[in-house]
Amino acid sequence: MKDTAAAAAVETPVTVSTFDVSRHPDTARLVLSSPKPPGVREEFVGVVRKAFRPRASGGGGGGAGRTPPARWGWALTALQTVFPVLQWGRTYNFNLFRSDVMAGLTLASLGIPQSIGYANLAKLDPQYDTSVVPPLIYAVMGTSREIAIGPVAVVSLLLSSMVSKIVDPAVDPVTYRALVFTITFLAGVFQVSFGLFRLGFLVDFLSHAAIVGFMAGAAIVIGLQQLKGLLGLSHFTNSTDVVSVIKAVCSALRDPWHPGNFLIGCSFLIFILATRFIGRRYKKLFWLSAISPLLSVILSTAAVYATRADKHGVKIIQRVQAGLNPSSASQLRLSGPYTVECAKTAIICAVIALTEAIAVGRSFASIRGYKLDGNKEMIAMGCSNVAGSLSSCYIATGSFSRTAVNFSAGARSTVSNIVMSITVFIALELLMKSLYYTPIAVLASIILSALPGLIDIKEALSIWKVDKMDFLTCLGAFVGVLFGSVEIGLAVALAISFTKIIIQSIRPQVEVLGRLQGTNIFCSIRQYPVACRIPSVLTIRIDTSFLCFINSTFIKERIIEWIREEVETSDEKARDRVQSVVLDMSNVVNIDTSGISALEEIHKEMASLGIQMAIAGPGWQAIQKMKLAGVVDRVVGRDWIFLTVGEAVEACVTMQKGTALEC
Amino acid sequence: MKDTAAAAAVETPVTVSTFDVSRHPDTARLVLSSPKPPGVREEFVGVVRKAFRPRASGGGGGGAGRTPPARWGWALTALQTVFPVLQWGRTYNFNLFRSDVMAGLTLASLGIPQSIGYANLAKLDPQYDTSVVPPLIYAVMGTSREIAIGPVAVVSLLLSSMVSKIVDPAVDPVTYRALVFTITFLAGVFQVSFGLFRLGFLVDFLSHAAIVGFMAGAAIVIGLQQLKGLLGLSHFTNSTDVVSVIKAVCSALRDPWHPGNFLIGCSFLIFILATRFIGRRYKKLFWLSAISPLLSVILSTAAVYATRADKHGVKIIQRVQAGLNPSSASQLRLSGPYTVECAKTAIICAVIALTEAIAVGRSFASIRGYKLDGNKEMIAMGCSNVAGSLSSCYIATGSFSRTAVNFSAGARSTVSNIVMSITVFIALELLMKSLYYTPIAVLASIILSALPGLIDIKEALSIWKVDKMDFLTCLGAFVGVLFGSVEIGLAVALAISFTKIIIQSIRPQVEVLGRLQGTNIFCSIRQYPVACRIPSVLTIRIDTSFLCFINSTFIKERIIEWIREEVETSDEKARDRVQSVVLDMSNVVNIDTSGISALEEIHKEMASLGIQMAIAGPGWQAIQKMKLAGVVDRVVGRDWIFLTVGEAVEACVTMQKGTALEC
Repeated sequence: MKDTAAAAAVETPVTVSTFDVSRHPDTARLVLSSPKPPGVREEFVGVVRKAFRPRASGGGGGGAGRTPPARWGWALTALQTVFPVLQWGRTYNFNLFRSDVMAGLTLASLGIPQSIGYANLAKLDPQYDTSVVPPLIYAVMGTSREIAIGPVAVVSLLLSSMVSKIVDPAVDPVTYRALVFTITFLAGVFQVSFGLFRLGFLVDFLSHAAIVGFMAGAAIVIGLQQLKGLLGLSHFTNSTDVVSVIKAVCSALRDPWHPGNFLIGCSFLIFILATRFIGRRYKKLFWLSAISPLLSVILSTAAVYATRADKHGVKIIQRVQAGLNPSSASQLRLSGPYTVECAKTAIICAVIALTEAIAVGRSFASIRGYKLDGNKEMIAMGCSNVAGSLSSCYIATGSFSRTAVNFSAGARSTVSNIVMSITVFIALELLMKSLYYTPIAVLASIILSALPGLIDIKEALSIWKVDKMDFLTCLGAFVGVLFGSVEIGLAVALAISFTKIIIQSIRPQVEVLGRLQGTNIFCSIRQYPVACRIPSVLTIRIDTSFLCFINSTFIKERIIEWIREEVETSDEKARDRVQSVVLDMSNVVNIDTSGISALEEIHKEMASLGIQMAIAGPGWQAIQKMKLAGVVDRVVGRDWIFLTVGEAVEACVTMQKGTALEC
Repeated sequence: MKDTAAAAAVETPVTVSTFDVSRHPDTARLVLSSPKPPGVREEFVGVVRKAFRPRASGGGGGGAGRTPPARWGWALTALQTVFPVLQWGRTYNFNLFRSDVMAGLTLASLGIPQSIGYANLAKLDPQYDTSVVPPLIYAVMGTSREIAIGPVAVVSLLLSSMVSKIVDPAVDPVTYRALVFTITFLAGVFQVSFGLFRLGFLVDFLSHAAIVGFMAGAAIVIGLQQLKGLLGLSHFTNSTDVVSVIKAVCSALRDPWHPGNFLIGCSFLIFILATRFIGRRYKKLFWLSAISPLLSVILSTAAVYATRADKHGVKIIQRVQAGLNPSSASQLRLSGPYTVECAKTAIICAVIALTEAIAVGRSFASIRGYKLDGNKEMIAMGCSNVAGSLSSCYIATGSFSRTAVNFSAGARSTVSNIVMSITVFIALELLMKSLYYTPIAVLASIILSALPGLIDIKEALSIWKVDKMDFLTCLGAFVGVLFGSVEIGLAVALAISFTKIIIQSIRPQVEVLGRLQGTNIFCSIRQYPVACRIPSVLTIRIDTSFLCFINSTFIKERIIEWIREEVETSDEKARDRVQSVVLDMSNVVNIDTSGISALEEIHKEMASLGIQMAIAGPGWQAIQKMKLAGVVDRVVGRDWIFLTVGEAVEACVTMQKGTALEC
């Protein structure tokens, strides 16, 4: 499917008696006369210039004007680039605001209980609430309109499991908190630098398949962690792997435990899941599922307060201090013994948080039909986290469940985040004291109710169906998180993903091509069994875009082996004996010095067997380097380089007829 | 250069008024009806089966019979596979033997002084001689005919520098020796397993460019190490980097030193280099250069003995024990505190030794026109080293300088290695005592004389000319060895090489194609500026063989950006507006689930802009996965998948004319 002969070649029947160099088609000359491709330096300069070129931003608000009027000058443009709110804010109107307020209030009713629950998962007290400061910063800097910023389950788990290894929160809560804020600060700084240096591709390192497996594993791990709250256990393990947790639960259950916790947890979990089911069934009642967690907290707190169930073994939050979001700038520990561990944790958390936020943002942006600027998003997230770390917040990012609620509630811009943030702040400031009696089991049930959304079995099955190697990545991440730790899961997923790419480079396909009858199309005879091989011409396609040190020996040996086999098997009937080999290099975009030596050795081997070698359609960088290395003039010869396989085969056949007649 | 329209499409002028699905060319249907490509399991089974299939061996000896007679049965075949000597031995004759004896004796005269010198470089006493046992084992197992097995400079340096970090040989020579033998044993085991499990590609991980840089750096480092012997210094650094060595030399020169050493070293170095120059000039005198090192040792030892110069500050070997190659099996330390370090050192040494041996073997095999079996070579090398480790030898491999001498001296089979080995054994057994007076400066001059061959400036320049990235690898290895250590140099080279491959995968080219006038060939308009774009059809080629998580976002964004630009700039003149996009996927051999989502998103984006998308010539794995994922039926549509770009463009143009007429 690769090729054609020039029209001229098709029209003229092959009647020339000896090979006539002047028949070398004109198109073939183009291969050698192509301009010099951009060098490493030009490519690099181009990439940098493109990366830092100010773009006409797609804007964040509803129907905002795209180009700022010239009179505002460059200062406004720069400001607008950093703060998209300046762009869409000018066309913001009351109707949009009304939608955003409604969405913000709905979001707050879900955000309050989730903030408390996730703070508990991150092993922090409820006043370390992350739903207030980060959304405010994001609202003026972000480019997504629907995303809801705040704490998420996976990052909370990641943070608590990694920091617990450095300092046990039960032993030294002050240092634990200090490290959490430090990591949040560093993660923010990393995110900003990713955005500034256009390192958005780092987020792509975690493939979709890896994320599916990772999220499912994390959901199960988080669920198991909630057994502590659900069963009202006092002693529990700091490890997150399944084996440790099950051991801890078994040993804890041997001691007397209070079924009250379990009863409260289960009944509210069923309540929340039931309202969600109703909300899905009847779209109009979706607000029911949004406020059911808050309702659960209020009801259970009131019930415990009324019955004083905490005296009968029901665990309650207890540790509640007034004063939301005090400054935590003095707690940052940017030097000292834990800095390296903090930086390591911060970079992992930063990437995971960004991966989730950008995945969420992109999927909703694609529903609404606008485009997210990944680098700007990173800067906005980073700034939110830096601000958060200075005001007693831990890492915030875009939450999938809350973003979906925000979208369903009709949010039109990031103003809904501002409304949510203010509502949460006022509500918690007023009600923090009454959280004293909130049973921990209810927090566990709120977290548990959010987990099914993280396990996507359907997607895993479809990955299995389409791509077994991708499924292996998915499974690796899942098993790694479940039986190792969150970091091990990530490491396994990355290792499998990159091994896949390296294997693809080490063992590329090399295909024998045949001609489709009645056409001049050459394609792989394995993929298209109807294609017929040309007698006496072996056409081989090298299926790698980079012929380099890692695969050149393999390709060379494979090709030489084939040619030897062909020559040996066809020795008897001399007419069909292979006399020429056409190497289709149209897939080879680039080559390195090892690849060039491999070509030279193939040529030498063929010359020793008396076989003519032709090269068809090498890529731009490849032909340039072959010219520089002298392969074109010294080895293959200018007349044996063609634009298409068709032309090359034509020339080979012509030459053979010529020599046959001469004999 | 990629494509053709079917002959039919060329002949029939485009006159159909509405787009007629029945005009979908037959060739296009082939794309969807191609058989199922081999799955991961089949591929794996195929690779394993192929790897372990017994091959008809090319044989090692001169003109040996290729197939063993049937009556010997499978046992002989198996034995012959393991011991090629059984194959070529049957046709070995006296003439060949005479050539081999001459070559072996020449080799021995070079081997004796080099063995002693390299043992000194490896910080071992001269009786730990590696030129006896390993060549004997290699002779019956190896497939190369010219290679000369024994110690080489780079591996000696690598071993001494890495083991010195574990144990200082001056402080604890017994443990040092034990570790060297253990590492030799493990390296042998690793080499055998590489061969058995067909891991020959590991040797390719060090690209040619990396080896050029690495060897040059190692040569300079080895040369600097020789300053100790040449200047007769007593205290010297164990570090190998340039800075430490120069510091050590400077501080040593402040103490009084004896110019006698320097004088002896320099004069014999000049003598050896002069004989080599003569040997190169007059091919007949090449034996002069082969025996000049031995002559130097004899002359200098006699001179020192006669003048008792060792009393006046000339450093001599002194530590000489009789008894060559005693058993060292009891010294192996396969458990204990150093095992992990030993294994790490062993794997690095094993790979470096194999890289050198296979490079040497291949280049001489290619001169003589036979093919080396890489896996068999590895097993032979590994067995030689295991045997060597049990008889007080350190790692042996194929030496370039001695192999060249062996070849020039007319070696016809590995018998020359046996002759060399026996000669060295007898000579050293008889003369070991007299080595007491050999000045160390002469050993330094012998090692120094071998170094210029390791520095290949011409090759480095040609790498710079052809491929700047390869030169960076070369330079990285060179600078890493020179200013860091041997391991750092290797690590830098590997890191740069693999980064190159990953970058190539992360940022593939995406090219806009145009048609060559008068033909149906489509090729990149950047590479072939004469190619003309088809108005209203944007043809884009994806230049990566694996469309995967790491590059799918980049490719998607690049394509969408182009399409948006095209649509925006051509808004005014509606006739030229892009109405269809043809994605040429003929380079895309494989795809993963992220790549498939990227295709879906591109299609969605185009649909939202009212643009028709067609796909041309996807690879075998790619089309299979696209079918499985439902992209073909659900997204693109079966009628919009074509075998060639020509057909796809044809169909798009036809459709546009149809819609234009309808309007």
